Amino acid sequence: MIYAGVDLGGTNIAVGIVNEHGDILARTSTPTRPERDYKEIAQDMLLCIYKTLKECGRDANDLESVGVGIPGIANPKDGTIIYCTNLGWRDVPLNKELQKYLPKPVFIDNDATVAGYAESISGISKGCDSSVFITLGTGVGAGIVIHGRPWSGFHGVGSELGHITVAMDGVPCTCGNNGCLERYCSATAIIRMARQEVLSYPESQMLSLANGDPEQISARTVFDAAKNGDKAAVRIYQRYVNYLAIGINNVISFLDPEMIVIGGGVSAAGSFLLDGIRECLPRYLMYKTVANPRIELATLGNEAGIIGAALLGKV
Amino acid sequence: MIYAGVDLGGTNIAVGIVNEHGDILARTSTPTRPERDYKEIAQDMLLCIYKTLKECGRDANDLESVGVGIPGIANPKDGTIIYCTNLGWRDVPLNKELQKYLPKPVFIDNDATVAGYAESISGISKGCDSSVFITLGTGVGAGIVIHGRPWSGFHGVGSELGHITVAMDGVPCTCGNNGCLERYCSATAIIRMARQEVLSYPESQMLSLANGDPEQISARTVFDAAKNGDKAAVRIYQRYVNYLAIGINNVISFLDPEMIVIGGGVSAAGSFLLDGIRECLPRYLMYKTVANPRIELATLGNEAGIIGAALLGKV
Repeated sequence: MIYAGVDLGGTNIAVGIVNEHGDILARTSTPTRPERDYKEIAQDMLLCIYKTLKECGRDANDLESVGVGIPGIANPKDGTIIYCTNLGWRDVPLNKELQKYLPKPVFIDNDATVAGYAESISGISKGCDSSVFITLGTGVGAGIVIHGRPWSGFHGVGSELGHITVAMDGVPCTCGNNGCLERYCSATAIIRMARQEVLSYPESQMLSLANGDPEQISARTVFDAAKNGDKAAVRIYQRYVNYLAIGINNVISFLDPEMIVIGGGVSAAGSFLLDGIRECLPRYLMYKTVANPRIELATLGNEAGIIGAALLGKV
Repeated sequence: MIYAGVDLGGTNIAVGIVNEHGDILARTSTPTRPERDYKEIAQDMLLCIYKTLKECGRDANDLESVGVGIPGIANPKDGTIIYCTNLGWRDVPLNKELQKYLPKPVFIDNDATVAGYAESISGISKGCDSSVFITLGTGVGAGIVIHGRPWSGFHGVGSELGHITVAMDGVPCTCGNNGCLERYCSATAIIRMARQEVLSYPESQMLSLANGDPEQISARTVFDAAKNGDKAAVRIYQRYVNYLAIGINNVISFLDPEMIVIGGGVSAAGSFLLDGIRECLPRYLMYKTVANPRIELATLGNEAGIIGAALLGKV
């Protein structure tokens, strides 16, 4: 059985043909050019699907279904897209548009949700009945898998882990609330903290690694300087890991999945980040002496989007 | 099909025989006397089960299973009790003890979890595939139902909504962390806030309704005075409802169930509380203009514990 998976981003549309084990048999991509009408974008998706099918010697008749991961939210009832902020989409029936030309079941879900689902099929959480994938990038997103199935909420507005309030009187968030987890745990957050820190500690390696320009500080700058023992960077690293532990503990206290998977750009820090989280987390755990979720790094990287989207159609 | 449900509290053991629709056919209770060994308490549970069966003209052969709701956490893998703080229990194989004398499947789960499950079988969330029951009492607990089944986590340490961090630098909690939701949304919290308020506003009705003794202020005192338009009480009511809205919004942002059900002692305030929550919540919602979970009051009251425990065995 083969499935088409579409990872719809603001820059590129990545398409893959995936088997039931989560292996990508062929893949291709095309620019999104989000200024276009969604119907034109749907046409490009279809062309990519046909091209990718051909590349692996198959045709549309072999397809079980098409899945699309979107940087937004979909209506679980009718499969339409509710919101897709960076594409400027609202109430877009992308599923129906695709089905006009390719009469197969079409499934659409949030990109973090499908990435988490992919990890549970062929990544680090393979075989876990429940898991929460946390993506640490410009924002913070989550992919919840429960009873082996992706869960974005009954109305499609769930798994917005980045907008859980963790500091009622905290940093204002773009969403209008204060103290959202995203304001403390995203790459954006660690960069903000580091830029503030170098104002007080201009001798920090964080500044020299960024060519003396605070604007060039990235999450990686902080981790690299912290690994080198730079004191200001170590402080930011520890503060960041502490925030992550609070966020992860919230996931455990509420949902307690079998595994928590850390992905997204920040997770490129690898074991340096993971070890820090594992060391800090027990401080916050409610039940410290019993089994708690394993914390692991995601393994599928960018392929998770295609794999998870494709396997939305897997029963 | 009939099921035995046991609601094990620190004061009483309540037992009911329940049919598959969640109707209680007969019920009985006996004091817990928690200072005793768990084996003696198990014997009393069994005696109650036999007595209740007899009352509705049935016997043990008719029973599908036995379910027990506990003020603590159970291991979902082997069904033993991990912790039961107010009974002083730790790693107690209550399931095996019961099965020695009554060879039926025994299921044990957290009391808030089974209460939420009961509401989804025969209460306000009947027919909902997903719901989160929030109990507002001395503490704050939750009962998560997802895909129609109760969910206390993979390791049994989930649905501890009261211990989600909502204020990282906030009020210290008994669990050792700071700013747990319970410190803002429990009956204990509203009482704490009211007692502080009457120090500054001794003319408040909250104090006169409590016979001039701050120690006699209860959650009900605050709601009664607020309904009467007492300004200090209205302030506390609004602050409390605001905290609840933040907590409920966290549940929506993360899990987005079909319905959120408010129960526990504080929910006796009824529509006065519910209307306040419904009015305040939209301020925090991430997706304000799309469908979000319905917020409702629990309807089963104390019976939820027996019904939900009993129906743990319902497939």
